[in-house]
Formats: sequence, structure tokens, C-alpha cells
Amino acid sequence: MQKSSEKVTYLKAYPLKGYEDIQRVKADLDAGCIVIVRFTPLIKKSLDELSKSIDDIYKYVMTIGGDIARLGEDRIVITPPGVKIFRESGLKY
Amino acid sequence: MQKSSEKVTYLKAYPLKGYEDIQRVKADLDAGCIVIVRFTPLIKKSLDELSKSIDDIYKYVMTIGGDIARLGEDRIVITPPGVKIFRESGLKY
Repeated sequence: MQKSSEKVTYLKAYPLKGYEDIQRVKADLDAGCIVIVRFTPLIKKSLDELSKSIDDIYKYVMTIGGDIARLGEDRIVITPPGVKIFRESGLKY
Repeated sequence: MQKSSEKVTYLKAYPLKGYEDIQRVKADLDAGCIVIVRFTPLIKKSLDELSKSIDDIYKYVMTIGGDIARLGEDRIVITPPGVKIFRESGLKY
């Protein structure tokens, strides 16, 4: 039996402050992490940059076979392959 | 090599509407799910019930060796054993 301590998945939560931050999101997904980004700082900075960032993250997630969903007004949950988001009414898009 | 599709972890997000809902949280954690609960409905309903619910979830998470962290104003992330929450300034407690 495999010990659960041998394989740890990390869940990371941080703000998306600029387009360049999506490199971190991609790297974290590649490392098998679940990422929750708060995108409110980008709303204030630039809606174009926000749109481009979300679009790029979405496309990347589709490429790797991960999952993505909006969480409330300010956040997005992004998962690597092997972690699926269970959708129901409680999850606000 | 193990196919990633063989072992899927689910991330579920739903509101906590009453103390009885923590049974669902416990069952989901037991099933290896990551749970994000929005506790705002309980703030409006009863602060005592909210406090008791969070307290019970916290104690249960400690018992099973999971992890728990506040996510913004309205939510809590709760993880089963094997999923750790990476804490940094982006995660607001």
C-alpha cells in the first residue's frame, strides 16, 4: 500500500497582479498543484490584461486536460489533470 | 506507469446552509474530495450555528490529518490528507 505522505498535492492561492503572473500559474499546474487565483487586482489595473490572462489560462488548462471554474466574484479555481471540479449550484460562475 | 485517469480527485464547492451540512463536508473529505464551502448563508441564519459548524469542521480536519484555510471573506477551503494548503500572503485569513 502506498503511503499517502509520499505523494502530496498542493493547493495554492494567490492574486493575479499582471499578465506575467500566468507563467507562475502554468508552472504550478505543471507541478501538479491546484491553483486558486484572485483576479481583482487585475480588474483595477487593466481589463484587457485580465481578459488576455484568463483566456490564456483557459486555453492552457484545456491543453493539459485540467479543469477551471469561477469561484464567486473574485476568484478562479484551476486544477491539473487528475483533479476535476464538481459543478453544482453552489459554485457561482 | 499509472494512468492519471484511474485516480481522480474531486474539488467540490457548495454553500454551508446549516449545521447539518457539515455531515456532507465530512463525507466528502472521507471520500478524498477537496471542499470549498461558502459560509455566508450561515452568517445570516445564526452566528452560533456558524461558529459551531466551523469549529466542528476544524476539529474533524485535524483528526483526519487534512488541512483548512480561510479564502477571502466568504469561504473556507478544506482538504483531505495528502492535499496541503500552501500558505502565503495571497491567501487571506
